[in-house]
Amino acid sequence: MSDFNISQINDLIHSRLRLGIMAYLSTAGSADFGVLKRELEATDGNLSVQITKLEAAGYLKIEKSFKGKKPNTKVILTQNGKQAFIEYIDSLKSLINR
Amino acid sequence: MSDFNISQINDLIHSRLRLGIMAYLSTAGSADFGVLKRELEATDGNLSVQITKLEAAGYLKIEKSFKGKKPNTKVILTQNGKQAFIEYIDSLKSLINR
Repeated sequence: MSDFNISQINDLIHSRLRLGIMAYLSTAGSADFGVLKRELEATDGNLSVQITKLEAAGYLKIEKSFKGKKPNTKVILTQNGKQAFIEYIDSLKSLINR
Repeated sequence: MSDFNISQINDLIHSRLRLGIMAYLSTAGSADFGVLKRELEATDGNLSVQITKLEAAGYLKIEKSFKGKKPNTKVILTQNGKQAFIEYIDSLKSLINR
């Protein structure tokens, strides 16, 4: 294994919009779908797809509810997601701090 | 424009292998193709493609020569490339250090 190991970069997180989601939630903990959409300037479709991928990996949890009569989707960073994000940051740091 | 701006991440650099190339050269300055291939555990084809993209952007310069009878390709980080890499790192930092 090379000392200069780019394979350690977690592609599931590295993709730009998913990185944005994870970075946002790493401080916020959770956010409504609409907030993520606005903050990340994403489309409904793309944001949904990327959240589903992160949910499938166990990094996010989705809670659906109603705010009054309007359906609401809350996106929550899991403990696994938090850990994966920390490891992602560490792998980036070790790559770029040489 | 959102305060949480993932569009500032330079996709040309963000792609994993290209990030590896840029990160390696940001410290080494230049490297033979074979060295990059070994350090980044890349295939000839993929490494060539990504180097060509970075060269087209003005981030890299290629020098072809002979080492004895063997052709040698030297990959050199340009001043523009160095600047772009610094800006890339800054955009990542501002995203993940919240």
